[in-house]
Amino acid sequence: MPESPQGFKTAAVAAGIKKEGLDLGLIYSVRHATAAAVFTKNAFPAAPVLVSKRHLLESQHTARAILVNSGNANAATGEEGLLAAQSSTEALARELACAPAEVLVSSTGVIGRPLPSERIGGAIPQLVAQMRPDDPERFARAIMTTDTFPKIAEAASGHVHMLGFAKGAGMIHPDMATMLAFVITDASVPFQELDRALRHAVDRSFHCVTVDGDTSTNDMVVVLANGASGVAPPPDVVTEQLTGVCQQLAKWIARDGEGASKFVELIIEGAPSDDAARQIGRTVARSPLVKTAIYGCDPNWGRLICAIGNSGVALATDQIDLYIDDVPLIGGDLTAARQRLRSKEITIRIVLHSGSGQARVWTCDLTEQYIHINADYTT
Amino acid sequence: MPESPQGFKTAAVAAGIKKEGLDLGLIYSVRHATAAAVFTKNAFPAAPVLVSKRHLLESQHTARAILVNSGNANAATGEEGLLAAQSSTEALARELACAPAEVLVSSTGVIGRPLPSERIGGAIPQLVAQMRPDDPERFARAIMTTDTFPKIAEAASGHVHMLGFAKGAGMIHPDMATMLAFVITDASVPFQELDRALRHAVDRSFHCVTVDGDTSTNDMVVVLANGASGVAPPPDVVTEQLTGVCQQLAKWIARDGEGASKFVELIIEGAPSDDAARQIGRTVARSPLVKTAIYGCDPNWGRLICAIGNSGVALATDQIDLYIDDVPLIGGDLTAARQRLRSKEITIRIVLHSGSGQARVWTCDLTEQYIHINADYTT
Repeated sequence: MPESPQGFKTAAVAAGIKKEGLDLGLIYSVRHATAAAVFTKNAFPAAPVLVSKRHLLESQHTARAILVNSGNANAATGEEGLLAAQSSTEALARELACAPAEVLVSSTGVIGRPLPSERIGGAIPQLVAQMRPDDPERFARAIMTTDTFPKIAEAASGHVHMLGFAKGAGMIHPDMATMLAFVITDASVPFQELDRALRHAVDRSFHCVTVDGDTSTNDMVVVLANGASGVAPPPDVVTEQLTGVCQQLAKWIARDGEGASKFVELIIEGAPSDDAARQIGRTVARSPLVKTAIYGCDPNWGRLICAIGNSGVALATDQIDLYIDDVPLIGGDLTAARQRLRSKEITIRIVLHSGSGQARVWTCDLTEQYIHINADYTT
Repeated sequence: MPESPQGFKTAAVAAGIKKEGLDLGLIYSVRHATAAAVFTKNAFPAAPVLVSKRHLLESQHTARAILVNSGNANAATGEEGLLAAQSSTEALARELACAPAEVLVSSTGVIGRPLPSERIGGAIPQLVAQMRPDDPERFARAIMTTDTFPKIAEAASGHVHMLGFAKGAGMIHPDMATMLAFVITDASVPFQELDRALRHAVDRSFHCVTVDGDTSTNDMVVVLANGASGVAPPPDVVTEQLTGVCQQLAKWIARDGEGASKFVELIIEGAPSDDAARQIGRTVARSPLVKTAIYGCDPNWGRLICAIGNSGVALATDQIDLYIDDVPLIGGDLTAARQRLRSKEITIRIVLHSGSGQARVWTCDLTEQYIHINADYTT
């Protein structure tokens, strides 16, 4: 079982926001931590997104705590929602004896219902009393909605330890199932460097299962670096560690796709640029026709070609090679390809002969179960 | 039963491209017809798209015939595919004693398999022998793939008659199920006017079930005006008729959505512009979470708000009113809303208070049946 990096504690309680189970989680740093974050680009960001953005500005990118609830998104809740998010952070700040601006807040769950902030306020003393360094998984459980397992990823190098949590199990990419991720490290990292590392990492991880401008009202990724290890690793090491942790979390999300029966890694090579490769990968990954073909073990490579052609990327040639694992799809042995598609873990490689850009994108298949889960989520 | 406009004949045969049933259709004009067309923006247009584009340029936008096959898309078939499309048009031109450039060609079906052009060539004499003015529905049947019914729409005013055919039954918007439409009229219309009318009509019809840059390799919409009525209606009349016919066809397509159990009309009002309204409507229409909520009769308006926020349209206010029929969703009677959602025909009205732009967009719900249909289409 992983432990928290030095100087961090976590806690989780059942505050009654959901009908049952853990629904309120806390990440706490005993020291001021440098904080960097990436937020949703949805035109209607949820109240906790707005409050957290403001707090990061006010605190000049330091934080002591992140308060996260599941069961209610506090989105499309207007002025009242802002007050509810604000009062939750104030209640926690009082209990922790820190400034409210040093508390970040995050929510996930149903949109458009008032946040029961009195329940959250009432649960905060118990939450703070339970903080401990050795059970981060409990926090990961508290932030789950339709997730079927808690999502944690870890990295360590030298005396520096990094731990990441994520929540998210929608088809994610095509739509707006909320994706939350929180990464904590005891490395000492100045804000500019942490911010740069986070953007690099997010581009190569969460943006490869989800997409700017096509995101939920509540999406956020936050990293806290509290320096408790006393070590300030070189920027490259921080970036690499953070990218690794975020990629592992992103893969957990794809693996836990709602109703998914298969995990799919798309490897795009020979694109005009890395950005172009990601754009192609995302277009293929969100194609319902590709996702249903994978579900049906159908080596229907025409759907892949069609999706690539819809990506908006101009290619130097229409010569494309497609592989499932090492089995060529175009003009290849379709029986072998069909056999590979029966696996729970599928790698599709797309070789474009149009440059040296590459990317990896993760997704899952689309099954009847996705429909069942989403046809009656609120009611 | 509709008849063809004056001077047009149609035919359809079973050429053996599909395992069974009609799979080759012909539209023929006894006179030179003015031809306007809109083609897919997919980066890998199918061979028939490339050949038809070239023919329209060579013939200076006149045509005598459209040859359409189902069962094989002749897409991702390379140089061989171009030759196959070309030879089909040449075989038909010989039989009709017209120039090959006056024959347009269109295909729909599986991508990436060689077009059996020898079967098409072999069936052409029989096809031409069967041409008649009074059974256009047979043509509409021949161009079906996963469609469950033939799609025809008609308009008449004064002595002018217009008839439209369409094929398409995918989720269409989010992806790349092929959409084909052919409209024929005995009005006399100069090319510039016909082209302008077609673009106007397509923006308000097929683009409201499908979208530029997010289309199949084979999509095309063609209108032929042969002037056989001797009447040259005012441009407004042509535009209005063509828009009406295309909208009816677009609605048939949404109604026949793969696995759909409900037809949904989205009415967007108060947008910054008509274009913005369409963009919002399309984003909502393609959201799997909105579509599954409708299937589950779940008045989960948060998903609508979230999808609107993902459209990329900047709104003047976050004040949004949502209605199912006349039942308000936000702060409304959700039991009544749930009741309305049980209907097979649902109208969702989105009022944005950000201008006077409006649009109507058509879609369907997303059901398990969609998965069944698409999980094994080729095999």
